[in-house]
Amino acid sequence: MSKIAQHTNKHFEKEMEQLKEKLLKMASLVESSIAKSVKALKERIEEPANEVISDDNQINQLEMEIDELCLDILARRQPAAVDLRFVTSSMKINNDLERMGDLAVNIAFRTLKLLKYPQLKPLTDISRMASEAQLMLKDSLDAFINRNTDLAREVCKRDDIVDDLNIQVFRELLTYMMEDNKTIKVAVNLVLVGRHLERIADLSTNISEEIVYMVEGKTIKHHVEERDLRKE
Amino acid sequence: MSKIAQHTNKHFEKEMEQLKEKLLKMASLVESSIAKSVKALKERIEEPANEVISDDNQINQLEMEIDELCLDILARRQPAAVDLRFVTSSMKINNDLERMGDLAVNIAFRTLKLLKYPQLKPLTDISRMASEAQLMLKDSLDAFINRNTDLAREVCKRDDIVDDLNIQVFRELLTYMMEDNKTIKVAVNLVLVGRHLERIADLSTNISEEIVYMVEGKTIKHHVEERDLRKE
Repeated sequence: MSKIAQHTNKHFEKEMEQLKEKLLKMASLVESSIAKSVKALKERIEEPANEVISDDNQINQLEMEIDELCLDILARRQPAAVDLRFVTSSMKINNDLERMGDLAVNIAFRTLKLLKYPQLKPLTDISRMASEAQLMLKDSLDAFINRNTDLAREVCKRDDIVDDLNIQVFRELLTYMMEDNKTIKVAVNLVLVGRHLERIADLSTNISEEIVYMVEGKTIKHHVEERDLRKE
Repeated sequence: MSKIAQHTNKHFEKEMEQLKEKLLKMASLVESSIAKSVKALKERIEEPANEVISDDNQINQLEMEIDELCLDILARRQPAAVDLRFVTSSMKINNDLERMGDLAVNIAFRTLKLLKYPQLKPLTDISRMASEAQLMLKDSLDAFINRNTDLAREVCKRDDIVDDLNIQVFRELLTYMMEDNKTIKVAVNLVLVGRHLERIADLSTNISEEIVYMVEGKTIKHHVEERDLRKE
């Protein structure tokens, strides 16, 4: 290999490393936002909810930076095969993470509303949903770092657990509302929190599917479509 | 230009044309799914809702086809500048359209539930939301076809209208529920329909932002963040 080619290669590797680092930074910001929004919800405290709302700007900025870096690598380096898949998958994962950040903001806003009213009941099922969704994100990121497609596939299967919990939460909240109309405002906000958590789990599934594609070049999307609203 | 280069060029142009056609096909399928789900909701008929649910598979298949075509063009053709932006923007628009298709399915499922109960009231505001969201999608697709960034920018501004309508719908439904607890099941499902329509409008905004990027190479994302849950 010529000196120039070696030099170019090194630069390219450095850029790819930089992309990976930025994406992991993005992931950790989003993980932290979700954790804070869940903490605010469970412990009934405003501060972490407000932090989530103000941190969102940083997440949005980083999303744009990563997107630009990906487009720049595609334009200047024209990567092939596994490198190309890494760049295009990074673009998609980046987008999914940003949407998760928005969902954390939505949960934070809902929580600020909920804090104006007395607690409906201990949030057992919603807490479980939150823990499952957070674990799915954590595992999908571990799968990304270690290129572990077994773990990624396992995450996809766990989407059902969160969906089932959400149906349970939805039903229970309906019962509360019907028994006592003073609970309605709180319960409706909790229905929406449930929906946001379910979407966070969905997006972790998307990321895991993307990891399988990135590592194996194989699409596993849409194979098992979850349409369990039927069960409600 | 050599004969071989001309030949390669023609092939490339043909692939780009094919990509554009597939994306427009995707857009028209998704538009039709949204229209059907709204029709089922407004006219209280099951058939279009069932169609939306069964059509979703076709949308998912086409999404994967478009995604593969984009990756294939990136891998084999290594497009530059405006062509590269067209391919990467197509990947994003494709993804947004698929999510809109999912939201149409969600509305269809909610509608099937709603049809089991008597109508709450004429759905004036939700109907308006639906019309606005559908118009935003239509205009963003027109902006795509005509590379019209003025129209794309205009679509982004209209996101507020749908958000405001959703807040209005949400408040009104809360009032209904509190006044008469027999309306709760219907009203909660309508709250979720409102949320789905709002997301459809959001995704049309994403598409419009992507069109501005595609044509001008300029990012307009995240400049105006809508966080009007505050107003509820």
